[in-house]
Amino acid sequence: MTRVLPVKPLTAQAFQPWGDVIEPGGAPDRIINDGRCGRFHDRARLDFGDGRAGISLFDAEERRLPLDIPLVERHPLGSQAFMPVSGARMLVVVADDEGGKPLTPNVFLSAPGQSVNILRGVWHGVLTPVGTGGATGQFVVVDRIGEGDNLEEHFFDLPWRVEVLPGGVIL
Amino acid sequence: MTRVLPVKPLTAQAFQPWGDVIEPGGAPDRIINDGRCGRFHDRARLDFGDGRAGISLFDAEERRLPLDIPLVERHPLGSQAFMPVSGARMLVVVADDEGGKPLTPNVFLSAPGQSVNILRGVWHGVLTPVGTGGATGQFVVVDRIGEGDNLEEHFFDLPWRVEVLPGGVIL
Repeated sequence: MTRVLPVKPLTAQAFQPWGDVIEPGGAPDRIINDGRCGRFHDRARLDFGDGRAGISLFDAEERRLPLDIPLVERHPLGSQAFMPVSGARMLVVVADDEGGKPLTPNVFLSAPGQSVNILRGVWHGVLTPVGTGGATGQFVVVDRIGEGDNLEEHFFDLPWRVEVLPGGVIL
Repeated sequence: MTRVLPVKPLTAQAFQPWGDVIEPGGAPDRIINDGRCGRFHDRARLDFGDGRAGISLFDAEERRLPLDIPLVERHPLGSQAFMPVSGARMLVVVADDEGGKPLTPNVFLSAPGQSVNILRGVWHGVLTPVGTGGATGQFVVVDRIGEGDNLEEHFFDLPWRVEVLPGGVIL
């Protein structure tokens, strides 16, 4: 038996309890470079605790539907942000915590160019590029560099499944 | 009178004196997510001094050739990284310092998906997306958030100019 989850479009408002969506929207906070560039300033709730910020690159296999979600993970010591630099979209899976275990996951599909920052300690799925036509998806990642065990995993008793994207699209 | 600069392809090795190129290359440092994702770990020399890391988004007009470079700037208090999230390539202009003034600039053209981190205090040009077909180029930026004056500009007595890209390409 599997349990099917709906997929919602990724918006800053809907995603706010679990993290930030980094995208242009509304008026820029500042205009720089002689009027040629808008700066949307300081748009992520970064938290690296006693560690420091680092920039890494993740190169991840494309995933296809139907997609089983057997586990989620969380990083107790820091936030983690994902920036799509190869044009890939991603499924972003997040879940609230109750007593150290994740509740029912929420699944979002990013639009092209949307980046996300997942707050420290939030249960989330692994990086899931979709719609890349067989290529890997490459994402620049900003997360905590430091000592300590920064990974917890939770395997579900029954897997969750995603079968269809918003609008009935199957990438 | 203008002075013309050659444009070189952006490589990690060539760019090393002024910053980091963030891209997949060689074997990943770690394999994660049940073998489905390679992590190229901690690839940028970030430095935010007494400030903190922030994530912003820059939305910049496309630039076309021939391109005049009237000025460079530098950030004495922190590094600044640019991740292309709309597929744009960029011209990356950097210059060594001598006595508080920039020497002859070096100009690089990024490949699709390449991100750069410019070291603290390095003279560099403003964000310059090219080849976007008239669209703006969107870049996630990781730089210093904090107090203090973090911007110095230098206007050249004679402008520098870029006329042609590597291989004779004019985007």
